Amino acid sequence: MYSINPIGTIHTPFKQKLGIPRQPGLCPNIRGEIKLNSEFAREDTLRRLETFSHLWLIYWCHESDSWRETIKPPRLGGKEKVGFLATRSPHRPNPLGLSVVKLEEVKDHATLIISGMDILDRTPLIDLKPYLPMWDSIESANNGWVDSTEELRPIPVDFSQLNPQELDSLGEDKVLLEETLCWDPRPAYTKDPHRTFIHNIGDLEVTWKWSDLGIKIISLKRT
Amino acid sequence: MYSINPIGTIHTPFKQKLGIPRQPGLCPNIRGEIKLNSEFAREDTLRRLETFSHLWLIYWCHESDSWRETIKPPRLGGKEKVGFLATRSPHRPNPLGLSVVKLEEVKDHATLIISGMDILDRTPLIDLKPYLPMWDSIESANNGWVDSTEELRPIPVDFSQLNPQELDSLGEDKVLLEETLCWDPRPAYTKDPHRTFIHNIGDLEVTWKWSDLGIKIISLKRT
Repeated sequence: MYSINPIGTIHTPFKQKLGIPRQPGLCPNIRGEIKLNSEFAREDTLRRLETFSHLWLIYWCHESDSWRETIKPPRLGGKEKVGFLATRSPHRPNPLGLSVVKLEEVKDHATLIISGMDILDRTPLIDLKPYLPMWDSIESANNGWVDSTEELRPIPVDFSQLNPQELDSLGEDKVLLEETLCWDPRPAYTKDPHRTFIHNIGDLEVTWKWSDLGIKIISLKRT
Repeated sequence: MYSINPIGTIHTPFKQKLGIPRQPGLCPNIRGEIKLNSEFAREDTLRRLETFSHLWLIYWCHESDSWRETIKPPRLGGKEKVGFLATRSPHRPNPLGLSVVKLEEVKDHATLIISGMDILDRTPLIDLKPYLPMWDSIESANNGWVDSTEELRPIPVDFSQLNPQELDSLGEDKVLLEETLCWDPRPAYTKDPHRTFIHNIGDLEVTWKWSDLGIKIISLKRT
């Protein structure tokens, strides 16, 4: 048994599981922050990190407290089972997540501004490493069983139910709704077309519904 | 603080730090094995893993017991300092290694035959995940400060000092010597051209020396 201690915390607008992008890179305009613990928030520790465009994050999936031998991946409609080792599911014996993110800025030797995360807010960061395409980008690799599944495609997000004032007050948060809802965040186990969903993202509580035309936003609240 | 338990052990011919490839993929014909612990060595756990060509391994760098804020990477001649977070060095607060390897075979639901490792023998495996080029291969990423360093180039390996019998008895182990020595495994801090090196790889003890013409093997012993 080994002990690990977080080196920082990952802050994202994704406050709950519903609405988290299903893979890195789907929401390129949504930003997050890594706050490094004081021991690591130093000029020396970060020296030349800013020369990299992308980073690997290894993090503790703090809301995944159990694991099973098999997983029913959303990509297989939540019906077919595959071994947990053949998935990137956070439900694993050592619940470590691995994601590549874009490094936007290193701020004050303490905060890393990132984008493209698929990570829950307040996730403990265990390690970060530079992404090196010369090692990590393997063109010849296959996507295994994932190749036989449908490609994720964005669908329209319909803001027409909101009044102009609400729409105006959204400001830059509009991108939060557009980039997450366009991927149809309904869980695989409940694709019921009549169900209404409510979830928190950033400081918004958003109520929405799926329709043939896309995702329709029904109402919004600031939390 | 979190606790992690190995899910298996990575077996490679690399018995000591000297001679380990400096990055994954440099020695494509050298094979290793992952032995999963009995709890995970099951048909269900591994179901559909064989559909993937490459895997991510997250492992515990069990011989890295300290870390410093800065590292002097071999690629910068062991002279210039960069922050440890801007390197893939195993000397980190949480000494987790991350490498992509090729999956050659899943054997008896218990053993994974792999190639392209840059990992010490008997390294504890913490997690493995499928490599998904659709997520993990980012063409547009840069290599940061590494881009300004010289590309690693293989140099000739000279077997001429060995007698024909010795050479014959090498058999398939010849590839171990060829693929590792061709990358000039001399540590950055001791490029002394007159020094003789001895190291263990597989069950060989090999004595060698650098020369203008490449790496010259001086003698061999089975251990």
